[in-house]
Amino acid sequence: MLRRERQGEGRVTIKDIARLADVSVSTVSRVLNDRPDVSEESRRRVRAVIAAHHYVPNNTARDLVRLSSDAIGLIVRGVQNPFYTDIIAAVETALDAAGYTMVMRQIGFTDDELAVGAMMQREKRLRGVIFLGGRLNYTPREVAQLNVPFVLCSYTNAFGMLDRATYSSVSIDDERAAFDAVSELLRNGHTRVAALIADRDGSTISALRFRGYRRALREHGIPLRGELVISAGDSFAIEDAYRAVAEGLRRCDDFTALFAIADDMAIGAMRALREHGRDIPADCSVIAIDGIAVSEYIHPMLTTLSQPREELGRRSVELLLANIEGRGAHRQLMLPTSFRPGASVRAI
Amino acid sequence: MLRRERQGEGRVTIKDIARLADVSVSTVSRVLNDRPDVSEESRRRVRAVIAAHHYVPNNTARDLVRLSSDAIGLIVRGVQNPFYTDIIAAVETALDAAGYTMVMRQIGFTDDELAVGAMMQREKRLRGVIFLGGRLNYTPREVAQLNVPFVLCSYTNAFGMLDRATYSSVSIDDERAAFDAVSELLRNGHTRVAALIADRDGSTISALRFRGYRRALREHGIPLRGELVISAGDSFAIEDAYRAVAEGLRRCDDFTALFAIADDMAIGAMRALREHGRDIPADCSVIAIDGIAVSEYIHPMLTTLSQPREELGRRSVELLLANIEGRGAHRQLMLPTSFRPGASVRAI
Repeated sequence: MLRRERQGEGRVTIKDIARLADVSVSTVSRVLNDRPDVSEESRRRVRAVIAAHHYVPNNTARDLVRLSSDAIGLIVRGVQNPFYTDIIAAVETALDAAGYTMVMRQIGFTDDELAVGAMMQREKRLRGVIFLGGRLNYTPREVAQLNVPFVLCSYTNAFGMLDRATYSSVSIDDERAAFDAVSELLRNGHTRVAALIADRDGSTISALRFRGYRRALREHGIPLRGELVISAGDSFAIEDAYRAVAEGLRRCDDFTALFAIADDMAIGAMRALREHGRDIPADCSVIAIDGIAVSEYIHPMLTTLSQPREELGRRSVELLLANIEGRGAHRQLMLPTSFRPGASVRAI
Repeated sequence: MLRRERQGEGRVTIKDIARLADVSVSTVSRVLNDRPDVSEESRRRVRAVIAAHHYVPNNTARDLVRLSSDAIGLIVRGVQNPFYTDIIAAVETALDAAGYTMVMRQIGFTDDELAVGAMMQREKRLRGVIFLGGRLNYTPREVAQLNVPFVLCSYTNAFGMLDRATYSSVSIDDERAAFDAVSELLRNGHTRVAALIADRDGSTISALRFRGYRRALREHGIPLRGELVISAGDSFAIEDAYRAVAEGLRRCDDFTALFAIADDMAIGAMRALREHGRDIPADCSVIAIDGIAVSEYIHPMLTTLSQPREELGRRSVELLLANIEGRGAHRQLMLPTSFRPGASVRAI
């Protein structure tokens, strides 16, 4: 007791307790707050350590500063994107389990995520940053402002010039997924296949998926017809997809299948097709990429290439923390998609 | 210059710049980071103040501590709920504009949001907490652990015992919204109206909306039939709604209309109805509450009572900050819903 007092009240922290009990900081917090989601074995160990060290949770500035320096930024570009919901949950769960704090910032689709990341890193003393959605063309000079490790989650530096040793990314192979989706339509006999994209020339996911569309047509000897490429502008939003397809159909409706670069955009497109008198899939097949929850319940169920959303979030955290904690070098992971058959594609 | 040096480098903060330039802290940050989303007039004023005061952005511990003590917790219970997406965006935008930092934590539907809030408040030195979704039956003793102002966003203390002077809430009138939705079905000639709920007896939004269903039936002289009440358990998830309705239909399908307590649940129900051979709305009308984006694009478009999602988020921040900054007492706001006609209800 005397010895503990000489060491000072603040010497035993929540992290010490976690280390001594061989559990995560998050588990110690749960025990301190009497939460049910802790195993009896962990609870017993944590309580034993707390008792042995006379630990009292406190909120002195010292403890709080220590904790706040475990902040990881999650910068989400276009948060209304339903595709991101499961990824955000997976990132938060993985960070929490590892004893870090997620500080989330949502930015608009045209905001500069690197500038926001740099600002947050200074203001919140971030240890690292996860970018959920962003430009695919960063230069070394642009990312130099960050000063902390970062991961591109759900996208890559496909159009950029970053040295692979300087960043991590976790994504699918977007061009390949689009190639597979369009090939599925071609295998079903479709030759007049429209594409619903956001933009075709930018350094974006949309441009990568558009590449896959072009390559699939090319490999099947089908010429690209510009009037069958429908752009929703720089937007992935469902309402913009709906409007773009409604307008596109007025210009040219000479197609029997539509490839949409995202499930949510496909759902917007399907309404426009129906309002144009097209039954899906009798008059027009539809296929997309993402596999968001709702696309499994709409009528007809959307045929899509499903992204491993939980794994995208979890792996992003793993790579970032490995780098921060000196356990691993930067890596670029590409995860496979899975084909989820629905009822929106038919053979002709 | 001499005078500035005597005052010390740290004396002019980003907040001082904001006050002197008559803009928000967020605007100053944007100017410092050369972001495009600032008016030329604001940019000019901020730069003039920065030049006049020789301000240099720094990341000394003092500035960081000051900033980190502006943290507001947002605790989201059941983050996969698509209804929350727009609210989260509105909360973050409003907090950012007011110079606060949002620290978001997502918890499972059965987690205790008050315990999480209390833990976060200590660990992150929160100034206040916004609960997005939670129990409706808090007691004064339970909330005493929080120690900071809080707002219930999208729900109320309807089943609890809190003194109205001690908390804020921003929600719709859930019982009234359900009453209005079911009344719309009854006005269209339906008398055999099923209800899809989460639970009927708990202290939840579901129980409040179930009250509205019962009251509408009662006022129209229609007896409540237990076999027409379909519970998805304690879940609002689309997959649980789908399963519950699929099972419910096998027990009893003697109804011509379905009231679902949430849009997402209605979308799950519609798939189950179709798989049971029911066309919507020819064989069964469907109405719900929430007005999430996707429900406007599915087939048939869902008829629903739309919640003012952006306003729910924005008003929650307003009430919380007014209380924190001593500008206003706690209040309980109820915002109106708006009827969004779709194509899922027909007269019989």
